[in-house]
Amino acid sequence: MTESDTKRRVAFLGPEGTFTEEALLANMPGEGLHPFPYPSIRDVLNAVRDGAADLGLVPIENSLEGSVALTLDLLAFDVDDLTIVREVTHPVHHQLIARRPLELGEITKVISHPHAYGQCRAFLEEHLPGVEHEAANSTAEAVRTVSRVDRPWAAIGTRLSAEMYEGVVVREDIEDSPENRTRFVFLARDAAPQDLDAPYKTSIICGIGQDEPGSLLLILSEFAYRRINLTKVESRPSKLALGHYIFFIDFEGRAGDDRAAQTLKCLACKLPWLKVLGSYPT
Amino acid sequence: MTESDTKRRVAFLGPEGTFTEEALLANMPGEGLHPFPYPSIRDVLNAVRDGAADLGLVPIENSLEGSVALTLDLLAFDVDDLTIVREVTHPVHHQLIARRPLELGEITKVISHPHAYGQCRAFLEEHLPGVEHEAANSTAEAVRTVSRVDRPWAAIGTRLSAEMYEGVVVREDIEDSPENRTRFVFLARDAAPQDLDAPYKTSIICGIGQDEPGSLLLILSEFAYRRINLTKVESRPSKLALGHYIFFIDFEGRAGDDRAAQTLKCLACKLPWLKVLGSYPT
Repeated sequence: MTESDTKRRVAFLGPEGTFTEEALLANMPGEGLHPFPYPSIRDVLNAVRDGAADLGLVPIENSLEGSVALTLDLLAFDVDDLTIVREVTHPVHHQLIARRPLELGEITKVISHPHAYGQCRAFLEEHLPGVEHEAANSTAEAVRTVSRVDRPWAAIGTRLSAEMYEGVVVREDIEDSPENRTRFVFLARDAAPQDLDAPYKTSIICGIGQDEPGSLLLILSEFAYRRINLTKVESRPSKLALGHYIFFIDFEGRAGDDRAAQTLKCLACKLPWLKVLGSYPT
Repeated sequence: MTESDTKRRVAFLGPEGTFTEEALLANMPGEGLHPFPYPSIRDVLNAVRDGAADLGLVPIENSLEGSVALTLDLLAFDVDDLTIVREVTHPVHHQLIARRPLELGEITKVISHPHAYGQCRAFLEEHLPGVEHEAANSTAEAVRTVSRVDRPWAAIGTRLSAEMYEGVVVREDIEDSPENRTRFVFLARDAAPQDLDAPYKTSIICGIGQDEPGSLLLILSEFAYRRINLTKVESRPSKLALGHYIFFIDFEGRAGDDRAAQTLKCLACKLPWLKVLGSYPT
């Protein structure tokens, strides 16, 4: 029996060494868990739903890029029976990584995922102007490439990938924006035991039947009437019919709290569709 | 004097041959305009602000990826004096492109931007299982690469890039989701003359001073009271202070319409911050 057979799996969006694994390792939810990469967000969710993994970690919002609509849509329309049990926020720091110590002036090529390259534009324009850029499928792939070839090349990647491939961090935190953070959620088949002393947050999705003035007002008034604070509201066209909308709403508290339970009951009476994605510590 | 000196520039997010240029060419806003690529969304907006271009085209929302937060944040916080004058929605269709006609079974490598690869996963798993994937910085770069080497390689790119590099479309529309669309907006320094017979939409951004229950309700009630329909509501943390939020709101009608003007006036009285991004035909 191998080690991975005896450990429970946490599915995450791969490959290994990227920001999702870095966020996972910085926030491992207990002992005896084994991170396991999957190639897409849908595969992560399916792995949890089908029992191949006990938990799944997926990105849900980035401070620069906005909501990860793919995750929201999968939770809304495609995957039932999963519950958000925890959220974590992880800063996105980009490292300039090489096989051996290099001066910036020696570097002849930078390899990275196009997104990472775009997020370090100011540093690259100032310190590595005119240096060739080669794309990679992931920051981890970029770091692996420079670690295997003895050339004066540098990759943009995570600190974790530098450790994995025994690379050297030539310059740290080269990202343009210090506010680049990604919010991830852990998903499970069943709700976790709740800590009644900790502050909680609840995520719901609801749909309106008609695109009429005041429909969102109706939803929000139920929360305001009971003095429940919202931390996120986002409308998206529903995939069902043009002009119909669904709303992603996060509010403070647990779905089982008296006032929240009343609110959700009143909303369920009025709306054609309401789904509680989970209550979890903030 | 070259041709480009006598034509007015439309700045777009480059490089040439990608979806933004495809959307631009399908929706050119008049004669005598010359598309000109810029390396980032910020550069496009700056080019219009500084007068280097008369119009700028930037993505603002994708049906799979969600809002382009970078564009929204630049319009909210960094770039003043620009107005949305038009919106266009362009379908995202991915083509499998080679240098010469190929059977799928002959293809030994697929080159593409990692995003495009991810959006064609089902096709690739079914028809090109196990085929090597190489990353490119853009779909256009991928098509250029396969067009220059006489090997059985294929790129994933736009129909426009196939034409640019005289490639052959081996399989068309290989994207997983037929609902993949991107909404772009044209920005200018001044508002365009309005067509009073056409339906219009207005985009605004507003901020609240405190993270208190009912703040969004207050905003929405002003619209509902005057029977103005909203087509988008999105909250985002403001960059100014944790726990403070800004709202991106689209509503039906022109900012200058009686009821809309009243609504905006009442909101401006109550809110610390309100910015009208523009009124434009839907």
